[in-house]
Amino acid sequence: MTVKTNEKGSVTIVLFSGDLDKAIAAFVIATSAASMGKEVNIFFTFWGLNVIKREGGLIKGQNWMQKMLNIMNRGHAKKLALSKMNMAGMGPMMLKMMMAQKRVPSLREFIDMARELGVKFYACEMSMTVMGLVKEDFIDECQEIIGAVSYLSKAGDSNVNLFI
Amino acid sequence: MTVKTNEKGSVTIVLFSGDLDKAIAAFVIATSAASMGKEVNIFFTFWGLNVIKREGGLIKGQNWMQKMLNIMNRGHAKKLALSKMNMAGMGPMMLKMMMAQKRVPSLREFIDMARELGVKFYACEMSMTVMGLVKEDFIDECQEIIGAVSYLSKAGDSNVNLFI
Amino acid sequence: MTVKTNEKGSVTIVLFSGDLDKAIAAFVIATSAASMGKEVNIFFTFWGLNVIKREGGLIKGQNWMQKMLNIMNRGHAKKLALSKMNMAGMGPMMLKMMMAQKRVPSLREFIDMARELGVKFYACEMSMTVMGLVKEDFIDECQEIIGAVSYLSKAGDSNVNLFI
Repeated sequence: MTVKTNEKGSVTIVLFSGDLDKAIAAFVIATSAASMGKEVNIFFTFWGLNVIKREGGLIKGQNWMQKMLNIMNRGHAKKLALSKMNMAGMGPMMLKMMMAQKRVPSLREFIDMARELGVKFYACEMSMTVMGLVKEDFIDECQEIIGAVSYLSKAGDSNVNLFI
Repeated sequence: MTVKTNEKGSVTIVLFSGDLDKAIAAFVIATSAASMGKEVNIFFTFWGLNVIKREGGLIKGQNWMQKMLNIMNRGHAKKLALSKMNMAGMGPMMLKMMMAQKRVPSLREFIDMARELGVKFYACEMSMTVMGLVKEDFIDECQEIIGAVSYLSKAGDSNVNLFI
Repeated sequence: MTVKTNEKGSVTIVLFSGDLDKAIAAFVIATSAASMGKEVNIFFTFWGLNVIKREGGLIKGQNWMQKMLNIMNRGHAKKLALSKMNMAGMGPMMLKMMMAQKRVPSLREFIDMARELGVKFYACEMSMTVMGLVKEDFIDECQEIIGAVSYLSKAGDSNVNLFI
């Protein structure tokens, strides 16, 4: 087996979840790893695509089902729910205030930081097809679209793989 | 450390979740990896055992608690819920229709494809004991039952490990 | 890439979830790996910190938000909910009874076993800061507090990494 990773190793994360708390966990790990000089890839799939959706985009979809899913599934980095104790949006608001008080960056700041540190963002092709989303629906930080085979090549070369 | 994996690496997935969306994610990764020539193992545990339950099986269990859990936890590959926006079954129905429209295989088709590609299925012994399930409760594709130690030997030899 | 793991490999788990079923899955894997002679690290973060909270601790927090979160998020190893079918606490009760009947250890017993086998417990510094928790809030088994960078060094040296 040829190990192709750099000396410092690399980290590949599948971000399947669109929950604020899990997205923050993914970005804390990603930015910490990048700051250590590791190569970092995030593969956004399924609900995780919400994390990189552009703010204020139109309702997308080529048919009523995709439109309906995208209406209910609206959201972007500033509008995600919590995986537990969401309490109709109060949970995320409290978490954001608590993070700000302790000077922990917000998810949007983590996304910026990740990009500055060279973390690579990939959107999952199959999920986009199923949900009727196109490249233009995502923030500029994510302009690469790949399938599971490309994800697996990156994962196979990484010494830390996580599914979040 | 002796690396025992084949040249192309191997992938080991713990499928803990019984949610349709997560099961599909697991099978997309598994079948893609197998099509690349990688060795792939899926260890079905806890709610993930629902994915490989035989259709139309009887209510199983040796006591009222196991029976009650298995009644509420009924299901097989065609009856799983979504992790988000299940909407009393409408979410899974919509997802299935959207996948079919885009010619993405269904979970049942993914299971068949996985087996044809040589993906190995393992049921978790401890979860089966706790839930009162036996080998006959599972689809023919899954006839190997292993414990956590055997799972860990496979995981230790894999270069991609995921907990889904 | 210098592989620093011992001959038997090592396992590093991020325990993000505070659900009883997921915590049990993490400890089954951790104790099995340790019994095989592998080095095992568990990094408790976010809701996962509930697993190692001391029983009967006071409501903690330096402000009303932290206090409120900690009231609603009360709990320790004996009080966790299930990720599915919690049914106002009946689910966890049934699972505990079913595990006891089959002589599967309880979560509290798994924690003790893990420590005896040398599994290392680490609490996530950032989550503690956000939630207003201090070292004294945790059981004696967990007295090391680390950040994401230290977690990543351990993860980079492990051949099995899981996010649960």
